[in-house]
Amino acid sequence: MRKKVTETRLYRTEMNDKILNSGFKEFNKFFALDTNEYQKGAIEVKNKELMGLVGSMVLRCNDCIFYHLDRCVTEGCSRQELYEAMHISLVIGGSIVIPHLRYAFEVLEELIPA
Amino acid sequence: MRKKVTETRLYRTEMNDKILNSGFKEFNKFFALDTNEYQKGAIEVKNKELMGLVGSMVLRCNDCIFYHLDRCVTEGCSRQELYEAMHISLVIGGSIVIPHLRYAFEVLEELIPA
Amino acid sequence: MRKKVTETRLYRTEMNDKILNSGFKEFNKFFALDTNEYQKGAIEVKNKELMGLVGSMVLRCNDCIFYHLDRCVTEGCSRQELYEAMHISLVIGGSIVIPHLRYAFEVLEELIPA
Amino acid sequence: MRKKVTETRLYRTEMNDKILNSGFKEFNKFFALDTNEYQKGAIEVKNKELMGLVGSMVLRCNDCIFYHLDRCVTEGCSRQELYEAMHISLVIGGSIVIPHLRYAFEVLEELIPA
Amino acid sequence: MRKKVTETRLYRTEMNDKILNSGFKEFNKFFALDTNEYQKGAIEVKNKELMGLVGSMVLRCNDCIFYHLDRCVTEGCSRQELYEAMHISLVIGGSIVIPHLRYAFEVLEELIPA
Amino acid sequence: MRKKVTETRLYRTEMNDKILNSGFKEFNKFFALDTNEYQKGAIEVKNKELMGLVGSMVLRCNDCIFYHLDRCVTEGCSRQELYEAMHISLVIGGSIVIPHLRYAFEVLEELIPA
Repeated sequence: MRKKVTETRLYRTEMNDKILNSGFKEFNKFFALDTNEYQKGAIEVKNKELMGLVGSMVLRCNDCIFYHLDRCVTEGCSRQELYEAMHISLVIGGSIVIPHLRYAFEVLEELIPA
Repeated sequence: MRKKVTETRLYRTEMNDKILNSGFKEFNKFFALDTNEYQKGAIEVKNKELMGLVGSMVLRCNDCIFYHLDRCVTEGCSRQELYEAMHISLVIGGSIVIPHLRYAFEVLEELIPA
Repeated sequence: MRKKVTETRLYRTEMNDKILNSGFKEFNKFFALDTNEYQKGAIEVKNKELMGLVGSMVLRCNDCIFYHLDRCVTEGCSRQELYEAMHISLVIGGSIVIPHLRYAFEVLEELIPA
Repeated sequence: MRKKVTETRLYRTEMNDKILNSGFKEFNKFFALDTNEYQKGAIEVKNKELMGLVGSMVLRCNDCIFYHLDRCVTEGCSRQELYEAMHISLVIGGSIVIPHLRYAFEVLEELIPA
Repeated sequence: MRKKVTETRLYRTEMNDKILNSGFKEFNKFFALDTNEYQKGAIEVKNKELMGLVGSMVLRCNDCIFYHLDRCVTEGCSRQELYEAMHISLVIGGSIVIPHLRYAFEVLEELIPA
Repeated sequence: MRKKVTETRLYRTEMNDKILNSGFKEFNKFFALDTNEYQKGAIEVKNKELMGLVGSMVLRCNDCIFYHLDRCVTEGCSRQELYEAMHISLVIGGSIVIPHLRYAFEVLEELIPA
C-alpha cells in the first residue's frame, strides 16, 4: 500500500528536476545550499545525515525521513545507530512522532532487509 | 539584558527540582527517559548532544538550545562542529530559525569566550 | 479511497509490534509511558481521550486523531462532546486544522454510523 | 497516483457540506470567518490568496496549498508570481517545505498546463 | 524575574482592549468565537479549560498556558487534575514541552500557593 | 517593559554582524538568500513584506514579526493593509496567534503613533 522505495526515489527525482528546470533560478540556489550542508566537514557525513534524520522526525516530515534514512543507510549507519537517532527524535518530539516512527520502520524493512 | 549562563542553569535546576518533587511521579519517569537518551551508545555522547541541538533549533526552543549547547561544550564539541550543526538546523528550518541562531551565538559567547 | 477503520487499526497494530519487537528496549519504555497516561486518574478516561484528541488535532496528526477518536467512541463520548472538542481544536489551531476536521468526519462516519 | 484536481475539489466540497450540515453551528461560524477573510479590502484578492498560499506552505498543509493555488490561478496570478510566493515560503520555512513545493508543482501542472 | 500574575493579566486586558478598539471589526468576531468556545456544553467548562491547557502546552504558547491555568484554577480544577493534563501534554509533545512545564509550575506557585 | 524599537533593531544588527563575521561562510550564503527574496519581482516589495509578515505570524516568531512590520511600514503599508494581513494570519493560525497579535500591536504603536 505504501509506495516502494524505488518509486519514492523516482517521484522525488522527477519532481526535483521539474523544480530545477522551471526557469526560476532562486529555487536552484536553495537546493544547492541544501545539498552542500551534508558534505563532510568537522562532523562526518554519516552523523550529519543522522542529524538530518532527527530534524525530519521532530518536524514530522515523511518525505524528509525517507530521504535521510536512505542516505544514512548508504553512508553505512548501523541499525543500532538509526534506532538511537529515532529514539532521540521520539523523546524530543513526543508521541506525536510515533506515526513517523512507524513509517521509518516500514522504509527500513525495505532498505535493510532483516 | 539576557540572563547569564549561571542564572539560566540555576533557574533550570530549581524548577526541575520543583517538578520532580511535586509528588506526581509520572513527571519523574519522563525526565528519566529524557536523561537516559543522551547516554553513550552506538552513537557517541557528543554527537547525540549535537542531534539534541539540531532538534531544539528546528523546533525553535531557546531553553532547549541553551541546554544542548551547554552540554555540547562540556562534551568537547569544537566551534566548527557547533556551527555545522547550527547551519544544518538553519537550512532545514529556514529563516524562522535565525532568531534562535542569534540566541545561540549570544550563549556561545559566554560559554566559549573568543 | 481512504483506508477503512479496520485496516487502519491493523496497520497500527502490526507496525507497533515491529517497533516493540525490534530489540531496542527504549522504544518499549516510551510506548508504556504513552499508554499509561490515559488511565483513569483525577480526570476520567473519557475526558483524557478528548484531551488526546485536542492535542492531536492542533498538532495536525491524522494517525493520532484516528486513534483518539476510536478510543473516545469506545469510552462512550457522544457526538456532541466530540464536536465540542473538535471545535476547540479548530479555534485554537485555526483554518489549518480544517483538513483534519474533514478527516475526523470521515472516520466518524464509519465509527458512529448516522 | 495523486488525486486529480477535480477529485480533490469534489472531496473538499462533499466533506465541507457534511461539516456544515452536522447541526453543530459553531463550525459554520468559523467557516464563514474563513471565507470572508479573503474578500477584497485594502489588499486585493489576488494578493490575499498569495498570502494564504504562503501561510499554507510554511505550515506545510497540502490541502490548504491546493485550495489557495486553485484560487490564485482563478484570480489570475501569473506563474512568476506563484513562484515568488512559493520561494518566500521555502526560505522562511526551510528545506522541510520542499516536499510541499513538489506537491505544489504537481498541482500547478494540472491547473496551468505548460 | 517573571512577570507577576496580576501584571500578566493586566497586560493581556490592555492589549486585548487595543485590538478590540482598533476599528477593525474582524478581530472582534474572532475574539467572540474564541470566548464562546469555552462556554458550558456537553463538556463541562472545567474540562474545556483543561483541553485549552493541553492545546496550549503542546503548541508551546506560554501566554495561552497562563490564561488557561488561570481559568482552570477559577473553575476549581484540583492540582492533581492540572498535573494529569500537563503530563498528557508532555507525553504528546515531548521533551520540547519541558520549558513550558517549568513556566506552568512557576505560574501555579502563585495561583495556588502550597 | 518590552524592548524599544531602536533597541530591538540594534540587537538584531549586532548579532547578525557577529554571525556574518564568524568565519563560517555558509551562514552568509543563507542570509544573502534571505535578503534577496524580498526584492522587487512580479510581486511588489510591499506585498512580499506582507507575505513575510503572514509567514512570521502563523509560525509565531516575534522577532520575525518585528522585522517584517518594520519593513512593511518603511514600504508604506497602511494600517488597514497591516490589519488585513494580521487577520489572515489569525484565521489561518488560530487563537494561538493572539499573543503575537498583541505583540504586533505593541510594536505598531511605536512604529505608527496614532
